[in-house]
Amino acid sequence: IRPDGRAADELRPVRITRGWTQAPEGSVLIECGGTRVLCTASFTPTVPRWRKDSGLGWVTAEYAMLPRATSERTARESVRGKVGGRTQEISRLIGRCLRGVVNMKALGDNQVQIDCDVLQADGGTRTASVTGAWVALADALRWAERKGHIKSAERALSSQVSAVSVGVIDGRPMLDLPYVEDSRAMTDMNVAMTGEGDFIEIQGTAEHRPFNRDELGTLLDLATKGNKALQVLQRRSLDAEPGQTVRSADAKEG
Amino acid sequence: IRPDGRAADELRPVRITRGWTQAPEGSVLIECGGTRVLCTASFTPTVPRWRKDSGLGWVTAEYAMLPRATSERTARESVRGKVGGRTQEISRLIGRCLRGVVNMKALGDNQVQIDCDVLQADGGTRTASVTGAWVALADALRWAERKGHIKSAERALSSQVSAVSVGVIDGRPMLDLPYVEDSRAMTDMNVAMTGEGDFIEIQGTAEHRPFNRDELGTLLDLATKGNKALQVLQRRSLDAEPGQTVRSADAKEG
Amino acid sequence: IRPDGRAADELRPVRITRGWTQAPEGSVLIECGGTRVLCTASFTPTVPRWRKDSGLGWVTAEYAMLPRATSERTARESVRGKVGGRTQEISRLIGRCLRGVVNMKALGDNQVQIDCDVLQADGGTRTASVTGAWVALADALRWAERKGHIKSAERALSSQVSAVSVGVIDGRPMLDLPYVEDSRAMTDMNVAMTGEGDFIEIQGTAEHRPFNRDELGTLLDLATKGNKALQVLQRRSLDAEPGQTVRSADAKEG
Amino acid sequence: IRPDGRAADELRPVRITRGWTQAPEGSVLIECGGTRVLCTASFTPTVPRWRKDSGLGWVTAEYAMLPRATSERTARESVRGKVGGRTQEISRLIGRCLRGVVNMKALGDNQVQIDCDVLQADGGTRTASVTGAWVALADALRWAERKGHIKSAERALSSQVSAVSVGVIDGRPMLDLPYVEDSRAMTDMNVAMTGEGDFIEIQGTAEHRPFNRDELGTLLDLATKGNKALQVLQRRSLDAEPGQTVRSADAKEG
Amino acid sequence: IRPDGRAADELRPVRITRGWTQAPEGSVLIECGGTRVLCTASFTPTVPRWRKDSGLGWVTAEYAMLPRATSERTARESVRGKVGGRTQEISRLIGRCLRGVVNMKALGDNQVQIDCDVLQADGGTRTASVTGAWVALADALRWAERKGHIKSAERALSSQVSAVSVGVIDGRPMLDLPYVEDSRAMTDMNVAMTGEGDFIEIQGTAEHRPFNRDELGTLLDLATKGNKALQVLQRRSLDAEPGQTVRSADAKEG
Amino acid sequence: IRPDGRAADELRPVRITRGWTQAPEGSVLIECGGTRVLCTASFTPTVPRWRKDSGLGWVTAEYAMLPRATSERTARESVRGKVGGRTQEISRLIGRCLRGVVNMKALGDNQVQIDCDVLQADGGTRTASVTGAWVALADALRWAERKGHIKSAERALSSQVSAVSVGVIDGRPMLDLPYVEDSRAMTDMNVAMTGEGDFIEIQGTAEHRPFNRDELGTLLDLATKGNKALQVLQRRSLDAEPGQTVRSADAKEG
Repeated sequence: IRPDGRAADELRPVRITRGWTQAPEGSVLIECGGTRVLCTASFTPTVPRWRKDSGLGWVTAEYAMLPRATSERTARESVRGKVGGRTQEISRLIGRCLRGVVNMKALGDNQVQIDCDVLQADGGTRTASVTGAWVALADALRWAERKGHIKSAERALSSQVSAVSVGVIDGRPMLDLPYVEDSRAMTDMNVAMTGEGDFIEIQGTAEHRPFNRDELGTLLDLATKGNKALQVLQRRSLDAEPGQTVRSADAKEG
Repeated sequence: IRPDGRAADELRPVRITRGWTQAPEGSVLIECGGTRVLCTASFTPTVPRWRKDSGLGWVTAEYAMLPRATSERTARESVRGKVGGRTQEISRLIGRCLRGVVNMKALGDNQVQIDCDVLQADGGTRTASVTGAWVALADALRWAERKGHIKSAERALSSQVSAVSVGVIDGRPMLDLPYVEDSRAMTDMNVAMTGEGDFIEIQGTAEHRPFNRDELGTLLDLATKGNKALQVLQRRSLDAEPGQTVRSADAKEG
Repeated sequence: IRPDGRAADELRPVRITRGWTQAPEGSVLIECGGTRVLCTASFTPTVPRWRKDSGLGWVTAEYAMLPRATSERTARESVRGKVGGRTQEISRLIGRCLRGVVNMKALGDNQVQIDCDVLQADGGTRTASVTGAWVALADALRWAERKGHIKSAERALSSQVSAVSVGVIDGRPMLDLPYVEDSRAMTDMNVAMTGEGDFIEIQGTAEHRPFNRDELGTLLDLATKGNKALQVLQRRSLDAEPGQTVRSADAKEG
Repeated sequence: IRPDGRAADELRPVRITRGWTQAPEGSVLIECGGTRVLCTASFTPTVPRWRKDSGLGWVTAEYAMLPRATSERTARESVRGKVGGRTQEISRLIGRCLRGVVNMKALGDNQVQIDCDVLQADGGTRTASVTGAWVALADALRWAERKGHIKSAERALSSQVSAVSVGVIDGRPMLDLPYVEDSRAMTDMNVAMTGEGDFIEIQGTAEHRPFNRDELGTLLDLATKGNKALQVLQRRSLDAEPGQTVRSADAKEG
Repeated sequence: IRPDGRAADELRPVRITRGWTQAPEGSVLIECGGTRVLCTASFTPTVPRWRKDSGLGWVTAEYAMLPRATSERTARESVRGKVGGRTQEISRLIGRCLRGVVNMKALGDNQVQIDCDVLQADGGTRTASVTGAWVALADALRWAERKGHIKSAERALSSQVSAVSVGVIDGRPMLDLPYVEDSRAMTDMNVAMTGEGDFIEIQGTAEHRPFNRDELGTLLDLATKGNKALQVLQRRSLDAEPGQTVRSADAKEG
Repeated sequence: IRPDGRAADELRPVRITRGWTQAPEGSVLIECGGTRVLCTASFTPTVPRWRKDSGLGWVTAEYAMLPRATSERTARESVRGKVGGRTQEISRLIGRCLRGVVNMKALGDNQVQIDCDVLQADGGTRTASVTGAWVALADALRWAERKGHIKSAERALSSQVSAVSVGVIDGRPMLDLPYVEDSRAMTDMNVAMTGEGDFIEIQGTAEHRPFNRDELGTLLDLATKGNKALQVLQRRSLDAEPGQTVRSADAKEG
């Protein structure tokens, strides 16, 4: 039995709101339980210098947390004058996941910059970022199609991508860990998958107790189930109106 | 006639939501027209080293913008490795305004750290920050009283403080400038006032056309009117339930 | 009665020396009581990249203090690796004040960089910087006219600008605060004015006790008086020979 | 057929030399094909401040490349003033892998700092770092036992850990990728395993083509085989004399 | 014949003014030809942490240039966020020279921080800094004796130290190079000597043409002559009143 | 009698290995007693921007130490975010020494970047760097000649340069100080000389006891002897095969 009463293979309530802010070409607020991330996608009709004349586009991502997203205040990285290792690691993960489903040729001489800012953190902020950022990216590509920057948003986006965390708590594999579980997890794994059910990224860490091949299998089963559910929500959100909040079936009204 | 149809002495619609995130001791989302700022107050029962053994508390503030709060994406200050001059100037302004209404002796050996993060920017972000931060500060002090860290939240907070921008557009003094007006203003002034109608801070800049004593008078009249209205909302918000959004009379449903 | 025997509306002795160093196009040592600031103006016949092709010039300013300008040694900002908030705030203030009296079209594709380095600090360093920098700027523009970079120094400089501090000490409004008064001031205000007596910048802070409309009026009267006297000196200095020190009437020989 | 003539499941020649430099408590030069990493372990009989009074030790790691370890010179991170994302990501990975096999209680109030400096890079620098660093760590713990800082090096080190890269090249899973293969890999995975054959860390990235569950299985089989061979070498190296180079069976004389 | 009409073994006019600013324990303006450096000595009755409980004092130095000390404006190191190599090299040189004549035991648990800020640069700024800083240091030690921080300023300062530049211009050894010569020098040497005529520091660089043993001899003869003259001035300055300017015999009135 | 049994005028055993790593155009491992430095020379057929269109080449150098090259671990400069004064001072010294023997015109529009990374430090790391770097530079220039980037390596390199340390220990002048002597030296001098026996750089520091003209003479005699021996080795190394280690006569097998 989990602290919040969920089954081992159950996601927390998820809510996705497109168009949460007005300026960005894509702007999505994603809420997974207590975790709340604002994902924006900024489309610019140029590519970084090193990518010039390649005919290929580029997608990059930056992740950050507000100082009081967490139960204790964290000092701002701008004030400390440098971006920490955890932040960079997550930013790179998000960028790779999204690039993994973008057709760079179809994107052409254009760049999308993803920003994932955690407004409230309760575990799984990096996976929520991937899941929300994909929706923001899709919106930005639709915008670019409407504006004539790219021919087809559909072609530029070769697949969906979502991500979810799984872990082993007291010897039991679990899906979608909130902070209270995450901090107790012996094994912690983040799994990003495409709409076809293939893996884009697997990051499993067992600093506190190694895991074997069988446990890995169970964890990947859970992650597959979770990602399928998240991808249904992503599609439902893209079909909804901007400003409308799409909720997972088991999500209570907020 | 202003682009959004307001009278010269009319505020934009204001919405204040307390308890917008759960972790901070005070957490307020303030919306002034299109400007949206998350103001959090973090209470810690210690003071900075230089303040030790003084018997006095301390209040400090940091301001920042999300990269895509603006119509063009701004590079993160954490990535650039330093906090810009504008950011520091505003952080210092917010800190001074709040300290101006705190009784440091009644606060005792405790510190409150204010964070104002602009989620969406449409002019007046620094004044919205002051106005929202005061509500978050009041909430944090109530929390501290409940927890026994301070004897009386009321004594620790000697007055209200709110702030509003005024400016001269095409020769006409105006209250509460959105971005489209702010960027055309010849004179730009931010005025922070206490609940008693006294000034805590006046910052008037006339890089584009000096102003005379008469214009100053008119601007201060407008600011006084605006601050009075904002202070009514601050008090209504503190009387409402956390999570409930308090709106100015002329604010349409969002 | 003030510690240095001045009346409430009396400036400290002021001394202005043009051509204090040889390399800069404008180089002015300004001394206001114990405060001593070296203001240099560097003219370059190019503009920053973002200003290219606008036909407009640019004026910018940087302020700094020598480590032992103050009674306690301050660590160098270069060694600490970042420019502090106070320094940035003052640099921006000086830049705005000077830009407020420059005709950018008449300046053309040229830039003037102002540097104000405080050699000795005894209160009012930012206002002394503005006052001295204007003289250095005027000298640099005359140089540019002589060299043919601009057509007319007079047209490029649309007005004078000077600045002075005022404050409320023990309830009494005072002009031109030295450090010993400044640190006790309940209200502290810096006022920059043009040669026509209009305001370029008003920065009033009342962290220690709010001030009302009447007090503001008195403070602005004092500032007006002080700025008028400073502007007489600025003009006398520009009429004098480089290297010659111009003194306020009440200034004793140094 | 691979460019260097290896079979798909064959490691490159490996050479491990303990005591390569004299100062560190553990100092290991590991060579995997053209990749050459100097791994040092610095033992200090104190723990970081945040770990004080916990009775637990700490192990941390830093990774870096010499500027000309690569075919093009890379600018120094010290000169650029910040540690890049890739460097931080790898440093964190190495630290987690080693902590995963250390008994922090048995290590007691002591810290080991691992430094992995890449002298020559030809793919797999992070996995070579993990494999070499474990040997350096073992040496440092033996030193600490001899000096009486810890009771038992054996108890402090609960298992072996080694790491190897695997990837999919042109649709074929391969073990231990040199740079020429790594840069063409569609899927790239680093797998760290304990002496018992359990996983400490799995990092699989498929930026260029997602992979499915079957491919994952094959990759993990290859990684298991590679890690077993590396762990035999680690043990042989610890049994050899310091300064002596231990070579994999198929390694030609260098 | 040199551009300024001096003989090869002649110093530029030197002027030393003690007590040029009021706050520091030692404050000296030294002018060597067009080079003008403000040297301050800050005495603090504590030592850096690493020096604690040694019974020994410490002397350290920092050198910097105002942005417009030179004919072209140099960007501030504070703004660039780091201290350049040249600045650090010179700061370290000054520190070593002064420490070379301080009796650290007699200085006791006290520190002197030297700041050398170049107000105007015309060659030889580092040697002028050493020469001026010694006078400031002597003043600070006298102050410390008066205040009872040390027993004897004379014992704490074991000797004089001064420095001068020499160089080979078009094959001819010359004493005390101004900028116009320095930039053409094939060999450039800075020589710091004690009151006894011994060497504290020799830094000779021949990036543009190596020099032989004979040339070295001639250069050291010139440096010896120059340093003797500078040391006479240092002593005359210490005998004069604060505020009084001591000039070398051949110095014209400024 | 010296701790390692050498005579006062005897070098430590020296070993030079060219081609120690494969990627750089020049790659030399130099070992002087316990000091071990990897010197690489990176040739690029472009010059820095400020050197463009001058027809002249450029040579620059960077020096660094691995964190555990020393008996105590030193924090990485990349992690501390800035390059220390000592590092910059040495980098600049190496650059000047090498530039002193390069014919920039013959080098043409090409740049060589020297990297000296200390793998193990036992005194004299900066002089070993100069000596080893010259061999790496020679190799890079030969490479450039073979590739047709320059016409003649011989013309581009106008002379040899090597460097050695000398010092006064307990009143006795000594050649080539290891760490244990260096830290006790009263006078410490680094002397770089050309193949013709002229000086490129002399840096003598006597923080702990000034030295007189006679002592200087003896020290320069020692340095001359040491540099001659080092230059024989440099030439023998260039005549040997890459990968082969050239040893000084008195060097025992390692």
